[in-house]
Amino acid sequence: MDGNGVDWIGVDWGSTRVRATALGAGGVLDQRDAPNTAMAGAASHEALLLDLVGGWLRPGVQIPVLACGMVGSRQGWVEVPYRKVPAAMDLVQGLSAAPVQDPRLRLWIAPGLSQESPAEVMRGEETQIAGFLAGNPDFDGVLCLPGTHSKWVHISAREVVSFRTAMTGELFALLSSQSVLRHSVGGPDAGTEAGTDAGAFVAALGQTLSRPERLAAELFSIRSESLLHGLGPDAARARLSGLLIGAELAAMRPYWLGQRIAVIGANGLSQTYVRALAEVGVTAETADGAAMALAGLVAIRSGLAGQAV
Amino acid sequence: MDGNGVDWIGVDWGSTRVRATALGAGGVLDQRDAPNTAMAGAASHEALLLDLVGGWLRPGVQIPVLACGMVGSRQGWVEVPYRKVPAAMDLVQGLSAAPVQDPRLRLWIAPGLSQESPAEVMRGEETQIAGFLAGNPDFDGVLCLPGTHSKWVHISAREVVSFRTAMTGELFALLSSQSVLRHSVGGPDAGTEAGTDAGAFVAALGQTLSRPERLAAELFSIRSESLLHGLGPDAARARLSGLLIGAELAAMRPYWLGQRIAVIGANGLSQTYVRALAEVGVTAETADGAAMALAGLVAIRSGLAGQAV
Repeated sequence: MDGNGVDWIGVDWGSTRVRATALGAGGVLDQRDAPNTAMAGAASHEALLLDLVGGWLRPGVQIPVLACGMVGSRQGWVEVPYRKVPAAMDLVQGLSAAPVQDPRLRLWIAPGLSQESPAEVMRGEETQIAGFLAGNPDFDGVLCLPGTHSKWVHISAREVVSFRTAMTGELFALLSSQSVLRHSVGGPDAGTEAGTDAGAFVAALGQTLSRPERLAAELFSIRSESLLHGLGPDAARARLSGLLIGAELAAMRPYWLGQRIAVIGANGLSQTYVRALAEVGVTAETADGAAMALAGLVAIRSGLAGQAV
Repeated sequence: MDGNGVDWIGVDWGSTRVRATALGAGGVLDQRDAPNTAMAGAASHEALLLDLVGGWLRPGVQIPVLACGMVGSRQGWVEVPYRKVPAAMDLVQGLSAAPVQDPRLRLWIAPGLSQESPAEVMRGEETQIAGFLAGNPDFDGVLCLPGTHSKWVHISAREVVSFRTAMTGELFALLSSQSVLRHSVGGPDAGTEAGTDAGAFVAALGQTLSRPERLAAELFSIRSESLLHGLGPDAARARLSGLLIGAELAAMRPYWLGQRIAVIGANGLSQTYVRALAEVGVTAETADGAAMALAGLVAIRSGLAGQAV
């Protein structure tokens, strides 16, 4: 692609991956992604961005770039102040222009959200939330965004009212690949997904959901069960997923009990959470995380255009 | 030391370190330790052992070596079957002779313990337990052995009746050095010790002890508090320790409620657990972990000598 027809670029810049989308009059023109190898500071981030989107640029034409996520953190391109909740999901408020050397680019970074008490922060999920609300303006309830750091977000009247974070995905990754459980939980890393052994997943989920104090002792039992009773790697993985998601649901009870829920994420992981929520009698809607991030960036672009920036 | 006077060698062979002790008529003659760099199988383990104890050996004299710990696991020198609980703490039962190439060595490895339901395993702690019971033959109650994998062990009439494991030390190490919390929990790794901020430790302990379901959400709040409210690294470390030990105590309530407790471990970590137990009204005794391991090996040696091996 030679850049003809690219009106602007949206970038979903997470801590592990960067996904850039070229957009024009007809919508999405192209997409590229790469690992986030940038060091803190503008220079390293700009070099990585140019590697990714350079082919979409033309000499003498300045293209607006809208980015969200960890690119706005202290370790990012430039630190963008959080907006405090309760916060309306109009992210044009708080959008920060960021320093760029290349004259073909103009860059704005979306603000994350913070909460005073209990202390909470998010960067990136707010854009997925804005994208979801752009398509579901009347949604009142709770959004669950599972991942490395799962977010549970209470939405009312198009505002984020409150939210909480569980480190479920990061715990799963560390335990399954670096703890003694790695000998029992084999196979390629598929995140916190339940995998193929639904029975083991649901049984483990029930244990920590009903008796959250069991988590500390039940984790090691995965290793013992595989040594003594031949627990296989698929069942072990499903059990680890179930124990951790059960503990997350126990922590987040006020967020799902009696609420309308939508799960926003990658398909396999979302289905795992939908299955877990079904166990507590909640029927959850779903939306694709990458699509919602892009929809959020589109909503910001529309807001900017309205301001004739 | 030239090996004169060495009657036998005791080896506490853990998954991360190996500690060898030379013993003679007068007791401990010398001690050496090294990281456990051995690969699975006898050859690699024998090479490491000879590096460590070669200076204590003499041509033409065969020295008995008694070893305990991960050296008897599937990834060890040779796999030694577990003894099932309930089990008397006479470890001469179940002691396995292991293959050795060097004619100056004879080697026995102590058996670990296993439990059918809930499935549990230990290797190494049984020798510390035997050492403690050798000096405290009338102890009835619970032994707490904090560490990478903390063990809680119910003792009655010199038998191990039941036990459970919490991965507290391993979770602490992974979260403080490899998760997003590493940015908040600074400073050198001192294990799960409470450190200098007793107030933060006790407050966090109380949270997960009384409401174990909070663990999942409170872990990430360490990061948020440091970003938003300037939580310092000492307080963050104490808080992570408190949250995890509180969750462990919640899981192990049947093991400490109304029981006589002795904590066996390294001094700093034991003091952290003594402080935690004091919060639930339990006054715990303590014993040094390395000293108890050696006492256990001495007890095995006495038993072997009685059999004139």
